[in-house]
Amino acid sequence: MAAAPDSSPDARVVRTRNDILAAALKILADEGQESLTHPHLARVAGYSRATVYKHWPTRADLLQDAFDWLHDMPHHTPTGDLREDLVAELTMFRTVIRTYRVDRLLAVLADLAVSSAQMAQVRDQMVADGEAVVRSLLGTVTHGPALDAAALMLTGFVINAAMLHGGPPDDELIAAAVDLTLAGIRAED
Amino acid sequence: MAAAPDSSPDARVVRTRNDILAAALKILADEGQESLTHPHLARVAGYSRATVYKHWPTRADLLQDAFDWLHDMPHHTPTGDLREDLVAELTMFRTVIRTYRVDRLLAVLADLAVSSAQMAQVRDQMVADGEAVVRSLLGTVTHGPALDAAALMLTGFVINAAMLHGGPPDDELIAAAVDLTLAGIRAED
Repeated sequence: MAAAPDSSPDARVVRTRNDILAAALKILADEGQESLTHPHLARVAGYSRATVYKHWPTRADLLQDAFDWLHDMPHHTPTGDLREDLVAELTMFRTVIRTYRVDRLLAVLADLAVSSAQMAQVRDQMVADGEAVVRSLLGTVTHGPALDAAALMLTGFVINAAMLHGGPPDDELIAAAVDLTLAGIRAED
Repeated sequence: MAAAPDSSPDARVVRTRNDILAAALKILADEGQESLTHPHLARVAGYSRATVYKHWPTRADLLQDAFDWLHDMPHHTPTGDLREDLVAELTMFRTVIRTYRVDRLLAVLADLAVSSAQMAQVRDQMVADGEAVVRSLLGTVTHGPALDAAALMLTGFVINAAMLHGGPPDDELIAAAVDLTLAGIRAED
């Protein structure tokens, strides 16, 4: 008879890895990247140093897996009302930022990507996933440089507020950004 | 008789400090913040470790002075043509980003500000200086949440491109962002 799934060796390994990767992201978000060391991570996650070193011999392996683990960020499912869909997606982005401190993780990734092609790939993948819904919504009403500019502006607006202005935008500011962008696209049509 | 200014002890101290702070910013931009250690900085700047430690006993002192030293970033002087002034200011921002890798320095600051109130102040000052001209230009045609959104979008657009999309925007993209923003503001008027 098979063991219950949550006590099988595989399930235990998965749980251990999940616990430690979640703790790694928490350290990056709460304390900054300098604090992410194997010994500190072991303490925060509640595992032995040996366990942490066994799964991730180097800090680069650990960072890669931690960011990969974060990969599937939730998105709004479009309903067909462009304005409401954009507002809902940016509001979802705000929730994700608050929950996972994605703005801080992006700052860490941007810094690590300077010296690591591996981290630059992780950053590119995370950014592409992050902006996919906004880009595809805007792509229904504009194209070319105006689409690129609008997508960079709307996602950059949220990142800028969260990373450099003390917190992600409130409802009023999100609505103002979406309305300004859509008014601009329609006026240029 | 006073000594020639460039050989006086004070001038030498200033030159030493300038050399070392410039090297510190270069390390942050080219190699990322983990590489900024006193020994590595001494090597890159061409001074003794003792000199670096004497001027900046801690890494926090060093980071504070390095970012303060960067403070007075050049800006475009408005001429009265709003579109051209915004394009010129964002183009100047791009030049500053390329010269000083301000996008990377902002990523480092955002990360350091997570755990240091001192660094959060440095970041706030740098951001306020950086966006002042864009905000004041946009303030001639809009106000309230639309102004806040437009300023965050236009500066966030450049930072987003530089920090997370491989490089600051080209001329075509800057023009598209400015035109979209101004068209939106005028349509909402």
